[in-house]
Amino acid sequence: MPPIKGPGLTYADAGVDIDEKDAFTESLDSVLRRTYTDRVIPNPGGFAGLFRLDYNHRLFARNYKDPVLVACCDGVGTKVKLAADLGVFHTVGIDLVAMNVNDLIVQGAEPLFFLDYIATPSVDKRFLHDLVRGIAEGCRRSGCSLIGGETAHMPGIYRPGDFDLAGFCVGVVELKRIQKPIRVRAGDVVLGLASDGIHSNGYTLVRHVVDKAGLDLNKVYPELTATDTPAAATPARKTKGRNKAGAAPADGPTLGQVLLTPTRLYADPIVKLLRSYKVKNVISGMAHITGSGIGGNLCRALPQTLDARIDMNAWPRPKVFSFLQAQGRISEEEMYRVFNLGIGYCVIVKRAFAESVAERLTKLGEKVYIIGEIVKGSGEVRPD
Amino acid sequence: MPPIKGPGLTYADAGVDIDEKDAFTESLDSVLRRTYTDRVIPNPGGFAGLFRLDYNHRLFARNYKDPVLVACCDGVGTKVKLAADLGVFHTVGIDLVAMNVNDLIVQGAEPLFFLDYIATPSVDKRFLHDLVRGIAEGCRRSGCSLIGGETAHMPGIYRPGDFDLAGFCVGVVELKRIQKPIRVRAGDVVLGLASDGIHSNGYTLVRHVVDKAGLDLNKVYPELTATDTPAAATPARKTKGRNKAGAAPADGPTLGQVLLTPTRLYADPIVKLLRSYKVKNVISGMAHITGSGIGGNLCRALPQTLDARIDMNAWPRPKVFSFLQAQGRISEEEMYRVFNLGIGYCVIVKRAFAESVAERLTKLGEKVYIIGEIVKGSGEVRPD
Repeated sequence: MPPIKGPGLTYADAGVDIDEKDAFTESLDSVLRRTYTDRVIPNPGGFAGLFRLDYNHRLFARNYKDPVLVACCDGVGTKVKLAADLGVFHTVGIDLVAMNVNDLIVQGAEPLFFLDYIATPSVDKRFLHDLVRGIAEGCRRSGCSLIGGETAHMPGIYRPGDFDLAGFCVGVVELKRIQKPIRVRAGDVVLGLASDGIHSNGYTLVRHVVDKAGLDLNKVYPELTATDTPAAATPARKTKGRNKAGAAPADGPTLGQVLLTPTRLYADPIVKLLRSYKVKNVISGMAHITGSGIGGNLCRALPQTLDARIDMNAWPRPKVFSFLQAQGRISEEEMYRVFNLGIGYCVIVKRAFAESVAERLTKLGEKVYIIGEIVKGSGEVRPD
Repeated sequence: MPPIKGPGLTYADAGVDIDEKDAFTESLDSVLRRTYTDRVIPNPGGFAGLFRLDYNHRLFARNYKDPVLVACCDGVGTKVKLAADLGVFHTVGIDLVAMNVNDLIVQGAEPLFFLDYIATPSVDKRFLHDLVRGIAEGCRRSGCSLIGGETAHMPGIYRPGDFDLAGFCVGVVELKRIQKPIRVRAGDVVLGLASDGIHSNGYTLVRHVVDKAGLDLNKVYPELTATDTPAAATPARKTKGRNKAGAAPADGPTLGQVLLTPTRLYADPIVKLLRSYKVKNVISGMAHITGSGIGGNLCRALPQTLDARIDMNAWPRPKVFSFLQAQGRISEEEMYRVFNLGIGYCVIVKRAFAESVAERLTKLGEKVYIIGEIVKGSGEVRPD
């Protein structure tokens, strides 16, 4: 056909600039490389990421006789909306890795690599770099390599300023060591690892409360500024010097900063714990406490014949939960159904090892509480 | 704290129904299971998908001496907006798998498993089931298992009716057989495999044209109803009996149906081709033609010392491209920069094997054209 002369429609007119996207992708290379291990085969400009399994064990940290790949996929829910409203993106990058890696380790796996999907209405380099730096930091702290991802520019789906995130993580576990409910026995003890606040679930309700109660995300609420609330400390550190919205005022973090506290990464301590008990069957089961709370997640680690009895007063509840509950007049039942309420990860252990496991996890930097025990039942979690 | 009595705020008030989501997740189990191979370890209610690698080769189809995991992530861009507008979701499910699997095989890998991320403002079972059935169909046709995924309910980010999709695919390739630009030699021949129309790139421009030219997605345009346009036939078949929007009128497919034609899945023929030439080095390189077209993708398979000279008249251009170009008065340069123009996948082969490879791919169901050759240069694609 004869070449048609402009002025005709172009992709750029429609809101997508291919050159800009290519330039951004190249600029991310160094950020990704900092997360690489010897097992990653660099593949710049390639169509996919390459990760060497090393059958021959030259580089493999431990020998896997019968390796099983473990894979999961998750996002950070509407916490992205809060991040967009506050212009703080680094922390949700960490959330994205945590939501995936914390699910992965529940199966007894060690994380290997991670890929991310970022969807935005347009290319905003500052936003994308903050986000990917957060994702890369989460990967480094979890011992996995960020080997690829996709940045999709989707005007028409996302409003200006909005975005979405999805993450995908692959790990490996020895066939015989896959965590299964059948390992759990009556008499086992449930250890609870402290969460860093709300983590990444229930934010549609959180934003609903902020809206209905007319709360100010940039205000410092005295009820929230307590040193014993992990939520209070972290985001100020995480975001300091990154941008205005992220800098903490002298008198404590704003509500927005407390709500953007990144999800705690449990991979490092849990992988170390599993390695140290490689021979003995000390850990019966684990659970990552996400949407639908302790009740909805710990039950996934239980066989149909056992219950987990949980003492809801066994740990201090981060003040952010009491604050939101009071502001939204949310029933205790609903709080229990939606939020982690202060416990982000559970480890079910043989009673004889409860103290030593708790001690080990404490040494690894976790706040650990004995929150319950396993009793005869029907696969339920019973809060007392 | 004393339990707070309602009427307080609930998660459901805020737009998220946990019970509904759990019910939907369970209902998907049978759809996923139909994609399972012996290597998948069922893990209902688990936190992650389990895929057995079988070091001991009992189940592994071929022995991998030094296996490399290949992983990629992609979405279908704003084609989701078109699907939402037309209420047809099965086909973008196939698109999602194709966009990922077609990237994966470029590295010489065989697909192993897939995970999906679906983000919606609310739970709509019909929509989600059509979508996941499409994803599962794409996985079955590509020989990979759909071992997990996440359905995120995100009111506030997505408008009613809108949604987004991301897919993640993992495959495996023998270290020595990873496709690398260094394999390409001057004199090699470029084979082009026909696309099924636009596939999943450039839809922001497509929608821009439809909008600016005031086109009717539900109208049958005579310029499009040609039997030699693969785009015309497929979607009517794919969606027949699924819903009104998907049923083709007697006189041919509507513009909407042509535009929703699913991306062609090249995994089955390419994996079979690679197996049949396992010993000989016949295939020098491959490219999946996506965003930025032949020029932007084929160059990714070239070393810095060679060019690919492409005869743009070597294949019939699907009428959908000429139609959109005319309606949008889009320049030929922009068409080349944005769309695949009828070639969805390229295979660079040694000249002596060009005919036999083309013949083999034709037997495997592909329309194959000799579209160019490799010459001395600087890593560029030169359209003639």
